[in-house]
Amino acid sequence: MNEKLKNIKLVLQYDGKNYHGWQRQKNDITIQGLLEEKIEKMTGKPVTLYASGRTDAGVHALHQVCNFNSDTKIDPESLRNGLNSLLPDDIYIKEAEYVDSEFHSRYSAKRKSYEYRIWNMKERNIFLRDYTWHIAHDLDLQEIKRCLSMLVGKQDFSSFKSSGSGNINPVREMYKADLIDHNEEGMVCFFFEAEGFLRHMVRNIVGTVTDAGLGRITGNDFKEILRSGDRKKAGIKAPPQGLFLTMVKY
Amino acid sequence: MNEKLKNIKLVLQYDGKNYHGWQRQKNDITIQGLLEEKIEKMTGKPVTLYASGRTDAGVHALHQVCNFNSDTKIDPESLRNGLNSLLPDDIYIKEAEYVDSEFHSRYSAKRKSYEYRIWNMKERNIFLRDYTWHIAHDLDLQEIKRCLSMLVGKQDFSSFKSSGSGNINPVREMYKADLIDHNEEGMVCFFFEAEGFLRHMVRNIVGTVTDAGLGRITGNDFKEILRSGDRKKAGIKAPPQGLFLTMVKY
Repeated sequence: MNEKLKNIKLVLQYDGKNYHGWQRQKNDITIQGLLEEKIEKMTGKPVTLYASGRTDAGVHALHQVCNFNSDTKIDPESLRNGLNSLLPDDIYIKEAEYVDSEFHSRYSAKRKSYEYRIWNMKERNIFLRDYTWHIAHDLDLQEIKRCLSMLVGKQDFSSFKSSGSGNINPVREMYKADLIDHNEEGMVCFFFEAEGFLRHMVRNIVGTVTDAGLGRITGNDFKEILRSGDRKKAGIKAPPQGLFLTMVKY
Repeated sequence: MNEKLKNIKLVLQYDGKNYHGWQRQKNDITIQGLLEEKIEKMTGKPVTLYASGRTDAGVHALHQVCNFNSDTKIDPESLRNGLNSLLPDDIYIKEAEYVDSEFHSRYSAKRKSYEYRIWNMKERNIFLRDYTWHIAHDLDLQEIKRCLSMLVGKQDFSSFKSSGSGNINPVREMYKADLIDHNEEGMVCFFFEAEGFLRHMVRNIVGTVTDAGLGRITGNDFKEILRSGDRKKAGIKAPPQGLFLTMVKY
């Protein structure tokens, strides 16, 4: 790396509702595209952002991490304040700092956490429409918890990978897979923490354990689905708006 | 009233963000305007809706009540379902039922409740930007509670009326004026219940007690403001997006 280049890390929050996901795209508005544009506006040079992972269209982040290299003389705090005034009010830079030149938001990450929120009441909640998956039928939370407990540990998650995700190593260590029900009445929140996640893995897991919660499959069926390594046996991919990237640890 | 006319009561929820308030207006999209349009679409005849009260632009409702007269043969449950499929997803009819011909959403109301939410953290929370007032400085909640306690009882609320509200009777009985802090970290929620509220009264009260929380005035100053009956002595009108109409009792 050029000696004069600094490596700058950003921690940010975004509401994914109005974006076509993280990754820069030619004709759609994305978080990466917008952020790179504003950084270029401030530093005068184009930059490439590296994120801890790409979130899909409609997915939110309470704590996303990205970094970029730049020879800008603007200090991180001024950069943070400047970007926050240039960005729309559904993206917010929480922190900005210099990091070692070796730091890479994706490759240096040790753990990532996601939360998935379900609104589990017969009636809709219009205030949560962009931030939850609405399931009107009763969920058997004990059966869901039984399924979630099988996910903890180091194993092959092929059954829950994205259908188009090719030949990447499907083994991941899952540290936590749990739920809290009714921390607000009607709300069911899933928590996942792992060394890393396959593409669409959380949404595919949530779609499948929800089948168990609705009585469409049993906990034993779930065990078989997990062991089979066959994506076709698992349930649907839960919709994006219930998913929040909540933490990345280094 | 025409014998064939039924009186139909609706209970609804709405996100006020995208609307110019409740009241029908010529050139702006309002809740009343939209709802009347959809009811006419279903029943074939224009109707006039009477609400428990008019909410301002940006103000939300968890529980608003309105009623209208119609000779429609469509039963209330079918009306509810039809309206919910015609309405945008930020307005939702929770209940629909026939009521006595004497029932009037505004004049029959016995009690109304409002909640006002403040996001009281140094950092913004983008997910709450349309549903809270962001105050970044520490609030002295004990001093605010002291002010709120003075509001309970039957008294003249002229100090907190809308500047253009003319000569209506400013005496109201307040049953409850309290706050809960940190039911979610960073969130301060005010609760008000009264036999009725003057226009902008809740927002004017919140703006003024917040001055006490920020140390700009004392509890004793607040007592003097309340007793003076002078709107000019009170604080600013708190912004609309933190306000929720939460209940109307009959």
